[in-house]
Amino acid sequence: QADVVLFDRLVSQEILNMTRQDAEKIHVGKQRQNHTMPQQYISQLLVSLAKEGKRVLRLKGGDPFIFGRGGEEIEELAAAGIPFQVVPGITAASGCASYAGIPLTHREHSQSVRFVTGHLKNDTCDLNWKSLAEDDQQTLVFYMGLFSLSIICQELIKHGMPENKAIALIQQGTTPSQKVYTGTLATMPDIIARQEVRAPTLIIVGDVVSLHEKLAWQ
Amino acid sequence: QADVVLFDRLVSQEILNMTRQDAEKIHVGKQRQNHTMPQQYISQLLVSLAKEGKRVLRLKGGDPFIFGRGGEEIEELAAAGIPFQVVPGITAASGCASYAGIPLTHREHSQSVRFVTGHLKNDTCDLNWKSLAEDDQQTLVFYMGLFSLSIICQELIKHGMPENKAIALIQQGTTPSQKVYTGTLATMPDIIARQEVRAPTLIIVGDVVSLHEKLAWQ
Repeated sequence: QADVVLFDRLVSQEILNMTRQDAEKIHVGKQRQNHTMPQQYISQLLVSLAKEGKRVLRLKGGDPFIFGRGGEEIEELAAAGIPFQVVPGITAASGCASYAGIPLTHREHSQSVRFVTGHLKNDTCDLNWKSLAEDDQQTLVFYMGLFSLSIICQELIKHGMPENKAIALIQQGTTPSQKVYTGTLATMPDIIARQEVRAPTLIIVGDVVSLHEKLAWQ
Repeated sequence: QADVVLFDRLVSQEILNMTRQDAEKIHVGKQRQNHTMPQQYISQLLVSLAKEGKRVLRLKGGDPFIFGRGGEEIEELAAAGIPFQVVPGITAASGCASYAGIPLTHREHSQSVRFVTGHLKNDTCDLNWKSLAEDDQQTLVFYMGLFSLSIICQELIKHGMPENKAIALIQQGTTPSQKVYTGTLATMPDIIARQEVRAPTLIIVGDVVSLHEKLAWQ
């Protein structure tokens, strides 16, 4: 029903085809080091299009409230007095877990799961490594962690996680080009260095990764 | 297309109506202190029905791989050589967050989010409280935490979280009976004690809760 659609890079053509054929479609997707449109501008565009009286759809991959900037965008809408609805989605961790056969929680292996971003800031990954490394019964999921994989493995080991802790890197999860690489914190950086891995990627750390061999789609 | 549907308590009639009308429907849902069917029996039933040559649908609320026992169930299927597919779903944290207007991550308030279960075991909540309490920039989500709310608030304060940290309890999130209660770790147990709160509930702890007033559905 939307008059205008602002969509991200991760939205597939199949999904875009479900919007109104004559709707205006604006690509506002972000790529690493190559921001198509700064976040602040996207929020302002949503406001100004709505003020023109248009029905606006902000179409994202994953869930808008988990590393999706949904909160930031609707804060601007609320401040401008523009009504909105938020539709939840399947976040990358859930999608990749199901398609890779890696449960995020499991009675025997993991009682909690934690989602973090592996984004680099000035070539370091500014995370609370101690807190991430210390809980043996939790699954860690790093969004967009390809470029920080080596740092993630190094820091987790440095802060006390066993070198042989299982880790998986899922390339283009839930798509026909999905590929799952598994290893340990000690071996994974070398495994990945020898491959041509394509973004988007998701990294899962924890004992649940060992289930992948058993449970991958048959 | 399924011949048999094994469904949980949280699956609504509207969803059940989407299954084949003449399919056999078996309620295997669990309620607190009142397990309709033990988990081990559910897994065995999936195996035996499949071995009878039936097409079996295991229908759950939320995501099967986030506190959904999906891993445990398909381990049994894999061991018995039965092919399966896993379809991801919108986990309660995502659904409740969107419908309550509480983003789980936010550039200014929270760089990571952690899902844990608030289930009581022998009247205590056996969690790594130190690790949960120490990271100021993360959002905590407790699944099924109503009965352990007081313990959650007490332990987080005891382990160093500020007494005035914001907390929300969402009753029957995403349904017409959704209700959102907000307070602080110090005030919340009393607020909830004065209400008749109905399960299922979800608890969110973190600075993102302050956005609820601004961002709730309009």
